[in-house]
Amino acid sequence: MILRLAFIGFGNVGQEFARLLLMKRKWLVSSKGVDIEVRAISTRSRGTLLSNRGLDLERVLEELKANGDLRQYGSESVDLTPLEMLDKCGADIMVELSPLNVDSGQPAVEHVSFALQSKMHVITANKGPIAFAYDRLEALAKSRNVKMRFEGTVMDGTPVFNLVEKTLQGCEILRMEGILNSTSNFVLTEMFRGRDLTDAVKEARSKGIAEADASLDLEGWDAAVKITALANVLMEAGTTPNKVDRSGIMGVKPADIDHAKEKGKRLKLVARADRTDTGVRTSVCVEEVGCESQFWSVEGTSSALILSTDLMGDITLIESNPAITQTAYAVLSDLLSIVEWMRTDGS
Amino acid sequence: MILRLAFIGFGNVGQEFARLLLMKRKWLVSSKGVDIEVRAISTRSRGTLLSNRGLDLERVLEELKANGDLRQYGSESVDLTPLEMLDKCGADIMVELSPLNVDSGQPAVEHVSFALQSKMHVITANKGPIAFAYDRLEALAKSRNVKMRFEGTVMDGTPVFNLVEKTLQGCEILRMEGILNSTSNFVLTEMFRGRDLTDAVKEARSKGIAEADASLDLEGWDAAVKITALANVLMEAGTTPNKVDRSGIMGVKPADIDHAKEKGKRLKLVARADRTDTGVRTSVCVEEVGCESQFWSVEGTSSALILSTDLMGDITLIESNPAITQTAYAVLSDLLSIVEWMRTDGS
Repeated sequence: MILRLAFIGFGNVGQEFARLLLMKRKWLVSSKGVDIEVRAISTRSRGTLLSNRGLDLERVLEELKANGDLRQYGSESVDLTPLEMLDKCGADIMVELSPLNVDSGQPAVEHVSFALQSKMHVITANKGPIAFAYDRLEALAKSRNVKMRFEGTVMDGTPVFNLVEKTLQGCEILRMEGILNSTSNFVLTEMFRGRDLTDAVKEARSKGIAEADASLDLEGWDAAVKITALANVLMEAGTTPNKVDRSGIMGVKPADIDHAKEKGKRLKLVARADRTDTGVRTSVCVEEVGCESQFWSVEGTSSALILSTDLMGDITLIESNPAITQTAYAVLSDLLSIVEWMRTDGS
Repeated sequence: MILRLAFIGFGNVGQEFARLLLMKRKWLVSSKGVDIEVRAISTRSRGTLLSNRGLDLERVLEELKANGDLRQYGSESVDLTPLEMLDKCGADIMVELSPLNVDSGQPAVEHVSFALQSKMHVITANKGPIAFAYDRLEALAKSRNVKMRFEGTVMDGTPVFNLVEKTLQGCEILRMEGILNSTSNFVLTEMFRGRDLTDAVKEARSKGIAEADASLDLEGWDAAVKITALANVLMEAGTTPNKVDRSGIMGVKPADIDHAKEKGKRLKLVARADRTDTGVRTSVCVEEVGCESQFWSVEGTSSALILSTDLMGDITLIESNPAITQTAYAVLSDLLSIVEWMRTDGS
């Protein structure tokens, strides 16, 4: 089986996924019976490529490395909007990796919606569609008999959605709590080592952990979007990020750090989802945790999630200091889930 | 689809699984299209039941509660060995829950082998077959086109084998380390609270955590069997428990506890599997861990496993203070894996 892909967004994650595809191509053919053809790549400022015979991924990566741009690639370079590209490319799977707009989830929601309408499967590492429009998009995917996968939206490639769907069948998720934003956790870790907030944020930027504008992380927005995505998918919460009771780490003062230290505690930005009589309540706020907590040893850019279930009690997952490869792996694991689905329930 | 089960061994786990089946029967029918019929139950000292019309599980449980025995159940009570029962019962799936013999894995290995030969799928929560004869049994299952599942053998129902098989496809496991024996961990935790070893073991027995003869736990055998099972399945180690470089917690003295405490450390019984030039090396021994370790907060009967992978870095799984329900859930999750397999690759 040949699967044709179209990318919207092709930054660090997209390029790392392309390298992973090249590395795992033989394995995909031999053990999964699947070959991949990349039909189209749309970027915001570095050009758009479209080819009905498939693009040469190695050359695409070289071109980006050499020129930082795809416009010199050849006759495959076109001047199309993402939706026009999707309309023409004849792909089986759309891979959505565009940057997140946290106010609305757009334009990613529109890209996903259009692809599903067009009977393409969707893989998104973009949290927007899952946090802002999960129920509608999932219903659309079902009605079109295609799949929407999104393992990379929370904790990179660490199996969270897949864990529950594929290995905890029949269990109900009663409650979740997690350390989900690596910039905040890195900054808090550095503050405990004596740095002040501004310095720690600078350090996070210089290491490529934080964006130039880190406010989405530091104000708890990123964690809010992630706990919303988790709650929508795993607890059928039907909620949105702006309903999260949210405070970030911007207000953390040196005195708070000292106070926690005196008590032998650390500060962590904890995201929670709880079932209540009126629905699922979500929150993000700074909490003191002691050394008996499983969050204690989750330092730097690591993240963690505790799932409380009816049949299996509490299960904790920790991802240690991830790199970009982990998010790229999420896209690969979503691709494999779609292949599996096509071979069984699908078609 | 109706699936017919036969049990060998029907102690705490078997009875809890039976309750889980009764609880989830409607869900199994409605969302999985599967109904369950229990054809046979073989116990070592409490009788054996066989019925071609299916046993009444509620009545079986009542009978055990009232009489501690199945011989009064009715005409279904028979005098057959486990293998004779398997031969006559016409089951689709054999559920092996007999007690473990750690020297050989017998008689469980023979039960599993016989069932697979007879083209029955196998679910085992008994570690013996996986630690002593995994390669041979897995090959036999393949040749008979049936499945052998064993999620309950390590960390109860926490998805370990399923996690790797279903959610980490394409990843290679490079290394594993875990706290896998809950009795040892409970005893070490109590010793750090001031109890001596004998007292702590007594406490474990009174809480039903340890067997009357706890030596298999305290000498590291149980952990050795578990790390062997993990290494055989996830790292293709082809090894056996007697090849584990093993020491248990019997030699831990109050002075060791004091010494660790002075350094701000705790003692944990850590099982490891590492790739070396000459194959996979396995070990079980007591180690000091500091508060930065993810093992630090794994106290009492909790257990943990760190999987080091090529593509996904380190992933940690922690199971918190499990009850018998967790092992029963493992059997249910194995049943669901078999159903899924029958619907796709199987037949």
